[in-house]
Amino acid sequence: MRTQVAIIGGGPSGLLLSQLLMKEGIEAVVLERQTREHVLGRIRAGVLEMGFVDLMREAGVAERLDREGFIHDGTVLSFDNEQVRIDFTELAGRPVTVYGQTEVTRDLYDARDKTGGTTIFEVENVVLHDVETDKPYVTYRKNGQEARIDCDFIAGCDGFHGVSRKTIPDTVRRDFEKVYPFGWLGILSETPPVHHELIYASSERGFALCSMRNAHLSRYYVQCDLSDKVEAWSDQAFWDELRRRIPAETAEALVTGPSIEKSIAPLRSFVSEPMRWGRLFLCGDAAHIVPPTGAKGLNSAASDVFYLHRGLTSYYQERDSAGIDGYSQKALARVWKTQRFSWWMTNLLHRFPDRSDFDIRMQQAEIAHLQDVRAAQETLAKNYVGLPY
Amino acid sequence: MRTQVAIIGGGPSGLLLSQLLMKEGIEAVVLERQTREHVLGRIRAGVLEMGFVDLMREAGVAERLDREGFIHDGTVLSFDNEQVRIDFTELAGRPVTVYGQTEVTRDLYDARDKTGGTTIFEVENVVLHDVETDKPYVTYRKNGQEARIDCDFIAGCDGFHGVSRKTIPDTVRRDFEKVYPFGWLGILSETPPVHHELIYASSERGFALCSMRNAHLSRYYVQCDLSDKVEAWSDQAFWDELRRRIPAETAEALVTGPSIEKSIAPLRSFVSEPMRWGRLFLCGDAAHIVPPTGAKGLNSAASDVFYLHRGLTSYYQERDSAGIDGYSQKALARVWKTQRFSWWMTNLLHRFPDRSDFDIRMQQAEIAHLQDVRAAQETLAKNYVGLPY
Repeated sequence: MRTQVAIIGGGPSGLLLSQLLMKEGIEAVVLERQTREHVLGRIRAGVLEMGFVDLMREAGVAERLDREGFIHDGTVLSFDNEQVRIDFTELAGRPVTVYGQTEVTRDLYDARDKTGGTTIFEVENVVLHDVETDKPYVTYRKNGQEARIDCDFIAGCDGFHGVSRKTIPDTVRRDFEKVYPFGWLGILSETPPVHHELIYASSERGFALCSMRNAHLSRYYVQCDLSDKVEAWSDQAFWDELRRRIPAETAEALVTGPSIEKSIAPLRSFVSEPMRWGRLFLCGDAAHIVPPTGAKGLNSAASDVFYLHRGLTSYYQERDSAGIDGYSQKALARVWKTQRFSWWMTNLLHRFPDRSDFDIRMQQAEIAHLQDVRAAQETLAKNYVGLPY
Repeated sequence: MRTQVAIIGGGPSGLLLSQLLMKEGIEAVVLERQTREHVLGRIRAGVLEMGFVDLMREAGVAERLDREGFIHDGTVLSFDNEQVRIDFTELAGRPVTVYGQTEVTRDLYDARDKTGGTTIFEVENVVLHDVETDKPYVTYRKNGQEARIDCDFIAGCDGFHGVSRKTIPDTVRRDFEKVYPFGWLGILSETPPVHHELIYASSERGFALCSMRNAHLSRYYVQCDLSDKVEAWSDQAFWDELRRRIPAETAEALVTGPSIEKSIAPLRSFVSEPMRWGRLFLCGDAAHIVPPTGAKGLNSAASDVFYLHRGLTSYYQERDSAGIDGYSQKALARVWKTQRFSWWMTNLLHRFPDRSDFDIRMQQAEIAHLQDVRAAQETLAKNYVGLPY
């Protein structure tokens, strides 16, 4: 088989890229290791920057997102007994949209079905070949058969554990990592959200987040020990712990119910440089991971897709390779700023086992500073709604 | 002897407080452990917030400061090859004034001479008594004689090592501290400053600061190991190291000369709570220390003096004790924000021996973020010129 762009990974980054390229008449084949149902079953982020929404619109897949997404004009940060509301629309001129990553992926698959793009599921042993040459190709195994796709470019959208990043030689790649000494225990529950905006809460007992997917589907998290087992957390224990960490009036208003999903995720900051190696371009989690505080995972992938899509389009339509040549540098400049924000939010709101009372006072002072200094609120808001591409 | 306010410590905080109180007709006696010459020989900070300058004006001691002080409209932050200038006047509506702490102290002593306020130097064995009662008093030894001052209130302006803070019982006091794993090696040199504004520079070799006292007197610092001995640093070694850490064009312009002062200072963040105990009020270094990055030491003392002076004036003139009752809370609220800023500047610009490559990228990203996001510059500027009292 031959295509123009081989996209490794059928998650939201790969699919969005494929739809954007298709709009420009550039052909792409998507290879996915899992089944479509498996991909759609992943529970992930739910807060979309306007830049992401604009990209979905550009790809022609934003109809349901525009109809069903919830516009959030702000969020609340709570630290012990202090609270500060950050008004995105007033401070940064834009809101964010709450719409589950699962829904984004579903819309992208539905669009791909309509436009007839090729997606190959359940591929095994994916190997990227000759990526430093002008004639890269991808081999894989499907239903016991070896197959090969020749292409002009490869987009590595296959996540942190994927093969794409590992194709870049160790002598070239430089990885940066920070592992946080805690995890997030999250549950999904068919209950009305406790508040119409997200509440990021830090208490003596640790961090908690009140989030949501829609008016009937809530998503809550509590900071937990990395050694915690999800089986050891009953729904009751989760709700009790959540109540202790959020503002009293929020705790009173909390509607609880059985969890329909419950899991523990570690928190990690990770960046791999460069994001381009020959004809291979890394996008999203394949090149970088953020801790979820600040809701940047999917949004940071979207900015990579934006730069890569623009670069490939200029290459095919105008024979201008400046965009793809500058991809790594451009994408990384924004990646690092997004990393900074996620790291800062994580540092601000969690209780770290090894931190001193002075460190906790620095967190409190940061909240007090946010309450008093509008420019500090504006800085937070501008980062939360997304820095410009 | 009897007075209204006994001020322990004849540094700039105690002297400024005494002058402000005298303007309101409140009598104060200042006790100082050292000689006047010793106090005037201390080389310390040189960047004054406008709030500090306004207090000096209010105290009637700003004539020379207004004439000789240098107005600085901005400062430069340099990180490896990246630079960002922070325009205080444009971003925060106010500049800062460069005028050495030594000059401030000299002006305050000259004013005290004219107004005839009592200052007792070379006092030993200062003890504060009955501070939880309405009738506190201070005893001390001078020229081998025991003496006693009865008073209404005691202002503890005697610095980190002074007796005032230690008078507050351990069961009441709560100390917060962070010690940084490096020091600042500083020199004073009779050379023209390399740049008309301060340059805060972070390089792979560590932090450096280009500062000044006036057009013919430069003050430079380099981050050094805590184990370094000042004797082991020749002037030549200092200048060579400074040149390696500052932007290339700055290094080229640097005029060097013999040092007239050279010393190593450790960096520490420290706050003691509460700042009031009965009739004792702590001001400045007696209650809190900042690392010098951000130039907040003297300025943070000045905000304490502001709140205490206002509180005592209301008490004596209007029999309103709300100001003194709320002193600790009000002063600490600003102290913690100043601590946050100094800690943040210190974290941003130094190389920490135990930090990872990821951490250094976070510093770089912070600089890039400052370059791109005006609200972040504004936040820095507002803190640097001084948050409102």
